[in-house]
Amino acid sequence: MNHVSVLDLIRDDLERTEALLRERPVDQHEAIGAALDLLIGGGGKRLRPTLTLLSARLCGADLRQAIYAAAAVEMLHTATLIHDDLVDGSLVRRGVGTLNASWTPGATVLTGDYVFARAAYLVSLTDNVRLMSRFAETLMVICNGEVRQLFDGRRRQASCQEYEQRIYAKTASLIALSAEAGAILAAADARTMGALRAYGERLGLAFQIVDDVLDFVADEETLGKPVGSDLRQGLITLPTLCYLEEHPDDPAVRRALENPTDEAVRTAVQIIAASPATGQALQTARQHAEQAKAALHPLADDPYRAALLELADFTIRRRF
Amino acid sequence: MNHVSVLDLIRDDLERTEALLRERPVDQHEAIGAALDLLIGGGGKRLRPTLTLLSARLCGADLRQAIYAAAAVEMLHTATLIHDDLVDGSLVRRGVGTLNASWTPGATVLTGDYVFARAAYLVSLTDNVRLMSRFAETLMVICNGEVRQLFDGRRRQASCQEYEQRIYAKTASLIALSAEAGAILAAADARTMGALRAYGERLGLAFQIVDDVLDFVADEETLGKPVGSDLRQGLITLPTLCYLEEHPDDPAVRRALENPTDEAVRTAVQIIAASPATGQALQTARQHAEQAKAALHPLADDPYRAALLELADFTIRRRF
Repeated sequence: MNHVSVLDLIRDDLERTEALLRERPVDQHEAIGAALDLLIGGGGKRLRPTLTLLSARLCGADLRQAIYAAAAVEMLHTATLIHDDLVDGSLVRRGVGTLNASWTPGATVLTGDYVFARAAYLVSLTDNVRLMSRFAETLMVICNGEVRQLFDGRRRQASCQEYEQRIYAKTASLIALSAEAGAILAAADARTMGALRAYGERLGLAFQIVDDVLDFVADEETLGKPVGSDLRQGLITLPTLCYLEEHPDDPAVRRALENPTDEAVRTAVQIIAASPATGQALQTARQHAEQAKAALHPLADDPYRAALLELADFTIRRRF
Repeated sequence: MNHVSVLDLIRDDLERTEALLRERPVDQHEAIGAALDLLIGGGGKRLRPTLTLLSARLCGADLRQAIYAAAAVEMLHTATLIHDDLVDGSLVRRGVGTLNASWTPGATVLTGDYVFARAAYLVSLTDNVRLMSRFAETLMVICNGEVRQLFDGRRRQASCQEYEQRIYAKTASLIALSAEAGAILAAADARTMGALRAYGERLGLAFQIVDDVLDFVADEETLGKPVGSDLRQGLITLPTLCYLEEHPDDPAVRRALENPTDEAVRTAVQIIAASPATGQALQTARQHAEQAKAALHPLADDPYRAALLELADFTIRRRF
């Protein structure tokens, strides 16, 4: 995250997490190593490990275990990105080519599987059964949501509720686990654990809505991938939902959804980006971020709690 | 397994494992349920859960945990099959169409991921950190081996040692874990754990070699998939290695490896199947099976140990 005070609090912990993420088992095939260098080395916001480390510090968890857990959430996230980019046919992420852009589907599938296994191994190093179990459950939620989207979701106008269920599965479930992980490791009381989980769920919803808005309004270079990629895949996100609520029969947007040519998508993106719909969607994200912050109110004031509150604000402010 | 006395010993345990394998979480997408009905309901030898249950009974592990572990090894095996069939482009397994034969690659990838997660969840129900960690390590070995095969292995004549490394990763590692799992759950002494693991490794090597021989000599209907599928994928297994050792320049076999048309593969399969090479490969499998049995010698005589010894013999005798 780019907020200095948050970063300063856990700079050493994050550096140790980075080192762990870059560690390569001796017998690992060089192609997997190269893929991980590309995917992990390429950076990223490290939101999930940041949350785990802050939550661990807040709850007084063992730091070694917290770093394993922080690396594990980022590794699990990376594994899901590898397979998602393959399924979606995305060719660019964070400004660099995706694995599937240069590798065969087979190599991409198996490398993703390896990264899942590596994530499971990292979480097993925490020695915490409950956390391992939550990892597995979360991955089931994520995959179940992706399968639902694939079979039922595209080119069909979902309700706002269905949209929220989808982004919960896709994004908020793992962000919630990241925020909850420190409390699990510290065996914190139910109130603390519930507060951090609720915070993570709301933060995750806000984060994904902002992502979905950026897919309409961002600068492509800052975003690191083409804008309009959701519409191009026939995926109706909150800005489109808000727009269609006001203009249910808009021919340009309907055309882009029915036949997403480059030209049709570009036109629809311009229309939606210039409309109040993106602002309405951002307003929903802001509400989720406020609820995330409110979830932390019961916890005692503390620099780590303050950092989590700042992160919620940053999630809304970010432009990439 | 079709051996009556082995089955009788753990019939109830296996039935409880089957019931667990067929359980469907309420929120599971129906497409995933349908896929699992096809893949799990289609049967299979259930070698891996059988090993886990026998090893658990032998070591006196908690039965409930053993059944979770037995279901977990079968689920992990199923997940690897889903992705393998996709990577290999296989259209038939156990006499029924593979998932990728009727689904898009995307749906197949995500369903496989879900099944990995389900396997991880089942193993987390054992509450045993060591077993969870061994699961993750084993999946890393399997995926690493698959990636190696994909990048380095095809159309290139490996040594017998490289072949053994490959089938260790692909098959023996999970069969070894299945046999070791009961000892891990029971926190058995190092000698018992080592004996069961060594048994499983050797049994796994024997099992895969027999599989590779059956790909040349089996009746297609009994096998449930076309023969010659390895050669068709440019994969050199032990029968081909044994044959090429005697006839390094055989033009028909070379042709099939360089350009695996149906006709070229059929001819090469006939030549290798009729040669002493398949017998030589089976002899190697028999040696591994004998070493598997020898590994159990240090353990006290017991009906479950006797069943494991019988399983080693069955592995060699089987025709499917």
